[in-house]
Parts: sequence; structure tokens; C-alpha cells
Amino acid sequence: MIAELIAVGTELLLGSIANTDAQYLSEKLSAMGITVHHHTVVGDNPGRLAEALETARKRADIIITTGGLGPTCDDLTKQTICRTFGRELELHADILEEIRTWFRTKLGREMPENNVQQALLPVNCTVFDNPVGTAPGCAFEENGVHVLMLPGPPFECRYLFEHRAARYLEKLADGVIVSHEIKIFGMGESSVEEALREPMATLANPTLAPYAKLNECMVRATAKAETREAAEKMLAPLVEQVRTALGDVVYGVDVESLEAVVSALLRERGLTLSAAESCTGGLIAKRMTDLPGASSVFRGGVVSYTNGVKSGVLGVSGELLEEYGAVSEPAARAMAEGCRNICGSDLAVSVTGVAGPDRDSRGNEVGTVYIALAGPEGTICRKLSCGRGRGRDRVRSAAASSAFDMIRRQLLGLPL
Amino acid sequence: MIAELIAVGTELLLGSIANTDAQYLSEKLSAMGITVHHHTVVGDNPGRLAEALETARKRADIIITTGGLGPTCDDLTKQTICRTFGRELELHADILEEIRTWFRTKLGREMPENNVQQALLPVNCTVFDNPVGTAPGCAFEENGVHVLMLPGPPFECRYLFEHRAARYLEKLADGVIVSHEIKIFGMGESSVEEALREPMATLANPTLAPYAKLNECMVRATAKAETREAAEKMLAPLVEQVRTALGDVVYGVDVESLEAVVSALLRERGLTLSAAESCTGGLIAKRMTDLPGASSVFRGGVVSYTNGVKSGVLGVSGELLEEYGAVSEPAARAMAEGCRNICGSDLAVSVTGVAGPDRDSRGNEVGTVYIALAGPEGTICRKLSCGRGRGRDRVRSAAASSAFDMIRRQLLGLPL
Repeated sequence: MIAELIAVGTELLLGSIANTDAQYLSEKLSAMGITVHHHTVVGDNPGRLAEALETARKRADIIITTGGLGPTCDDLTKQTICRTFGRELELHADILEEIRTWFRTKLGREMPENNVQQALLPVNCTVFDNPVGTAPGCAFEENGVHVLMLPGPPFECRYLFEHRAARYLEKLADGVIVSHEIKIFGMGESSVEEALREPMATLANPTLAPYAKLNECMVRATAKAETREAAEKMLAPLVEQVRTALGDVVYGVDVESLEAVVSALLRERGLTLSAAESCTGGLIAKRMTDLPGASSVFRGGVVSYTNGVKSGVLGVSGELLEEYGAVSEPAARAMAEGCRNICGSDLAVSVTGVAGPDRDSRGNEVGTVYIALAGPEGTICRKLSCGRGRGRDRVRSAAASSAFDMIRRQLLGLPL
Repeated sequence: MIAELIAVGTELLLGSIANTDAQYLSEKLSAMGITVHHHTVVGDNPGRLAEALETARKRADIIITTGGLGPTCDDLTKQTICRTFGRELELHADILEEIRTWFRTKLGREMPENNVQQALLPVNCTVFDNPVGTAPGCAFEENGVHVLMLPGPPFECRYLFEHRAARYLEKLADGVIVSHEIKIFGMGESSVEEALREPMATLANPTLAPYAKLNECMVRATAKAETREAAEKMLAPLVEQVRTALGDVVYGVDVESLEAVVSALLRERGLTLSAAESCTGGLIAKRMTDLPGASSVFRGGVVSYTNGVKSGVLGVSGELLEEYGAVSEPAARAMAEGCRNICGSDLAVSVTGVAGPDRDSRGNEVGTVYIALAGPEGTICRKLSCGRGRGRDRVRSAAASSAFDMIRRQLLGLPL
């Protein structure tokens, strides 16, 4: 089945926000075996939306719109879709009551009257009620084309897709599509494709597809079968084959991120971590604490952006910094050991390097990074070149990912 | 003039990446007075790209494509555009030499032979040479429609737009468009629209347009005139009018971010800052150190995610934490004072709160945040409710922004 995504919102055409809904939905649809051929973005303009709908209904089996369901948008999306597909709108009293309740309990005030139109939905549609916002979504079928409407705010769009729209779409499929994500750090997308060239080219069901992500990549294995069990049975040997072909650069299957894997490994072993960050400037701590419940494994850390903090807080000796510089193996080791000491954690990771835009005063190139890991059995250190030539952000995010991978490898006894 | 953006890349339709190029270009084009009516995304598929081009040339004066210029893409974009617009491709020897040099100097290896096709460009085009990557862009005009091709990788796309394509487009405009961005923190988009309803509705040139951004908003004032000077003369009283209407929630005009303003204020006054972060978990440090040259004003900080680190590193007394809890005014004050003390900074900010997903063990609601600021004249503290009901990320980013705004207000002597 072919899907087309139509996003409605002048804020997208003004560049106020990126169309992250399209990315999210495309990834989910592709994992369900639904092929996306087009994304289209139009403004809050009924004429251009109607045109986009007319074009889409000729070339897609599924049209998913995002946005234009708010109370101030004059119900642009619903009205225009109904006009295009020849449907009426009708008031859903139960949905109206839900919106009223949402205002009272979540926002602590009465619903303004213009929100009433959010309870207007096409006749004979499947309602996607929205417990995380005011705009419900919905879906209907007309002449073999399924039209789904989702709200634009990413949090609501994701919630309604996952909990409502995905089920609607699953029913359309003949059979079940199951996929697994094999996450990889430390091997580029082209090398992964090289290593898996044969199965990628020859397999039809299950299939393998590579994805490049920030600082890492992923292979998705997808199978279509009559039942979930049958699909899983097809996937198990394929996932194993990928693991074998790629080796220990595979850091997990269906896991969220490197830091989530590190966090789970620490929890499993009852260990705690802290971080001393120079060039990453808090990014490792931020990524660890992005995970709910982080405090059971992550004690905290020090952002030692200046030598004063490296000495004063982490206890790195001034002579050492003078002799070797802040971007050096001795500094990285001392930072990790000092951090472990003051934070009282089992392990402490440190990162010191040159994020750029310029090389440092000792002539270290942009991207030069030392990562040390201190533990009960001593301290290890690696020198890396991270994200060179791709700007400050990339150096920093690549350094943080490398630090997480070093912790993972150490915890699993893998070569560094 | 009307522009249409066409992004080419199957990775966009698979959801592997978001179309951030479209956001960037839309914002830039809109600031130049060029209206964007459509974004379209197609995969690496010549047939669907040709169709999108045919549609776009009928409704737009400017078509900008992103992506499909890489050596492995079989020159999909250039070939298809040339076929659609009836042009030939020709080899540019100087561009080929630049690509060879780029490989040698930046990547330290010889150029693979398939990169030769990156030096093939349409006959009689304006070349956008690319010093930050291998794929040059280009532009030509055919029957009144301007076609611009930019590479897909965001870093290269932005560089080539800013340094090459923007100049090409400026020449097309009759007159000059100048715009200023008035950045606002602490007032919602709808209140801003309310306060500026009259000028927004009535002005034709210059104009005012509101933008909602993460945790903040912005008003863009744009003027079109024969010269830059004339445009600036039209804008000056308008910017002043907005400042007067909104008051001290305006944190800057044409500034990058709240943290950039804080950083500039600190530099101006010769002051340094450090940060003690609990619920924000390193985000304040990360945002400060996103700015190049941060080390002259930001000394570093402590991520005190656990009480052990609050006591052991920041010196917050265990009795205090016991009595009031970690999410409390006394804890926030002690964290800021302890951080100022150990980091040796003039000012220290602290944040402690409940990021969620659940309320804390003392019953503090998700979003409850205490922010304290310690300085030579004492410590101030505020209790806020941040990003409630919008998830963990939003609570954290709203808390960090609020901390930056509190520092700004304190440095400028504004009411907190």
C-alpha cells in the first residue's frame, strides 16, 4: 500500500518549525510495510490543500494529514477534506465532553466556545480521541482511499498515531508486518551496506534496509506473515545473521539509544556512573538524564569547562595541566579519577577535546578528543578523532556517543 | 515571488531524517520576502521527481531542490532537471579540480572516479562551488522559472545557500528586503498577537509576523525598499513600537538565543558564570557551551543528579536535604552558593525540580522547578511551573530557558 503525507500549516512554510511529524510517521509506516512516496506541505490555505488532496487521492491508498485541527484554524483540514471527499461534518457530543473535561482538569479553566468545532468530525468516521490535547483525529474510507487526520503538535501526533491510527492501519494490512531495529555504532552506513550487500539485494521477505542516523546507523529487518509468531520466526535467523556479519559494533536490537543500553547494563550490574565533561560541556549528563529514572545509575557529574574547575573541583593538578595541556591523556585520566572520587560513583567517564571552531593553543586539531574511564580496577583512556570538518555540534555529539560506546564495551568485556 | 522546495531522497520518505533543509530555506526565503507555497518530498525516483518538477514550474517562480547531488545517487537531480527543462550537462574542469583537492586535503585520499559526475553541471548555469563538501550546487533560468540545486546534507545546504544561492536570489528581487527578529521570552504567542493585533493586521510594508518557537516566541519585522538604508529607516520605529508594546519580555533583536544574550552580558561586565543542575541534568551547561568561545564567561558546573553529589560536591547539607527535600528553595539556594564557591565564578545558577514522568516522593508536581542565582550580593530564588503536561523534555528545556532569563533580568536590573 502507498501512503502520502500532507502537512497543513503556514508555520511550516515560514520555516518556524520542521516537519518532524512527517519523519516520525514515515518511519512508523515504513516499519508497518506501508510505502511512502510523497510528503507535501501546504499552508493554511483551503485551495492549495484541496489541490494537494485531489493529487494525492489519485496516487495513494492512504492519505495522512497532520495539522489544521486547532480551534483557531477554522477547522481548515476537516472542512476541506470533507468538501473534497463529499462528506458532512457532525458534532460528537462525547468528544465535546472530553474536551471540556480536558480544559477543566489539565488547564484549570473553562473551554472557550470556539473549541466546540474541534468536536465536529466527518459522518461515519473512526474517531481518534485525544487524551493528550484538545484536537481529536479521525479516519474514513472513500472509494478505496483511506484518509486519516492527525493533530500537528508532535507530542499529540505521535500519541494519536501510536495509540489510535496504527491500529486502524494494521487492520488494513493482509497479514502482520513485524520489524526489528539493529542498532550500530562504530561502522559507517556504506561499510554496513558492503557487509550485508548480498542479503540486502536478494531478500524479498524478510527484508533488510540500512538507515544512517546521527553518529551511528541502523539496519531494519522486516517480515510479513500471517501471524506475529510466523513473522518473528522468519526474523530471528536474519537478525542473528546481521549480528554475526557485523560483530560487536551492534549495540542492541530494538533499543532506544547507546545511553539507554549503557543505563541498562549499569542497572543490571548495580553500578553507578558519573561524568567529567570538558568539550562535551554537559551533553553526556544531559543524554543520561534524558532517560526517565536515570538517578538510579547516574549520580551526576562535573562540567569542567575551564582549567580552574578541572583543578578546583575535580582535583586535576595545575602542574599536570601546565605540562600536558587540558586536551591530553593525563588530563583525561585525572579528570575521570577525580570525578569518580568526588561523585562517589563506581565508574566515571571523562571527555576532553577540541570542539572547535579553532584548534586549541597547543595545536590540537578540531575533533581531537581523549576519553577516559575510571573504575575500581583502574583507568583506561583512548584518543579519537570525532566529527572532524562537520562543525562544533557534530564533534560534541560524536564525542559523547564514543564515550557511551566505550562504557558499553568496557562493561561487556569487548575490545575498546 | 513564489518559491517551491523539492527535496529528493528516499531517506526522507523512510523517516531516517527530517527535512530540516526545508525549514532552514523557508525561514531564509521568507526573510527575503519570497513566499513559499509548497514543500514536496520525493524519493530517489526520476519519474516522481520529474512529475514534481512539472507541477512546480507551473505554480512557482523559483524552484529549489535539495539532495540527489551525491556521487552514488547517479546524479538523479541534475539529470532529471536537465531532462525536464531541456538542458545538457557539461563537465566543469575547475570544479573537478576543486573536488580532487578537497579529497586530498580534507579526507587525505584520492578522489574515487565516480565523483567525476559531481563536476557535471547544466550548460550556462551559475555554479555554486562548495568548499565544505564535494557536491557543488548551481542555478539557471528557463522561461522565467529559476531552478536552484543545493546539496542535501544540512551543513552543506546551509553553507551554499548563505554564501552562494542567497546572492543569486537577491539579484532577482526588485529592491531590498530587510528584516529584524524581535525575540521574546515569558509571553505566549497568542498574548503577543493580542498586544500587536492592530499593527499586524493593518501594516503592508513594513510588516510584522509572529513565530512560536520552543519555549519562546519571536516577531519578525520586514520592510521592502529601494535601498537597505531606506528599509532600515522604515523598520527602526516599528521595532521600537514592538519593544514598547511588549516591554522587557523582549530579550533581544537579531540575537541568536537567550544564552547568547546572557553570554554577551557577562562578557560586557567581565563576569563569569557556573551552573549547578539537578533536573536539567547538564542542559544549561550544554547550551552555554554550544556557543563558541564560551570558556571566557562560563567556568563550568556540577550536574548534581543525586543527593550524594549535592552534598559531596556542592556541599549542600544532608540535614537541609532531609528537612526540605531536594526540590525546595533552601536546596536551590544552597546548590547555587555551593557551586559559586567551588567553581570560583562571579555568579552561579542552580535548578532543581521535577522533570517527570512522575511527581517526586514529596508530592511535588511534574514541572515544579526552583531556580536560584547566587552572586556577590547574595542569592535570589524563584519557584516556577515549567512545561507541565508536555513531557520530560519540555519541562527540562523550559526550566533551562527560565534560568537564562532570570540571569538576564538580574544582570539588567529588571524585575524577576
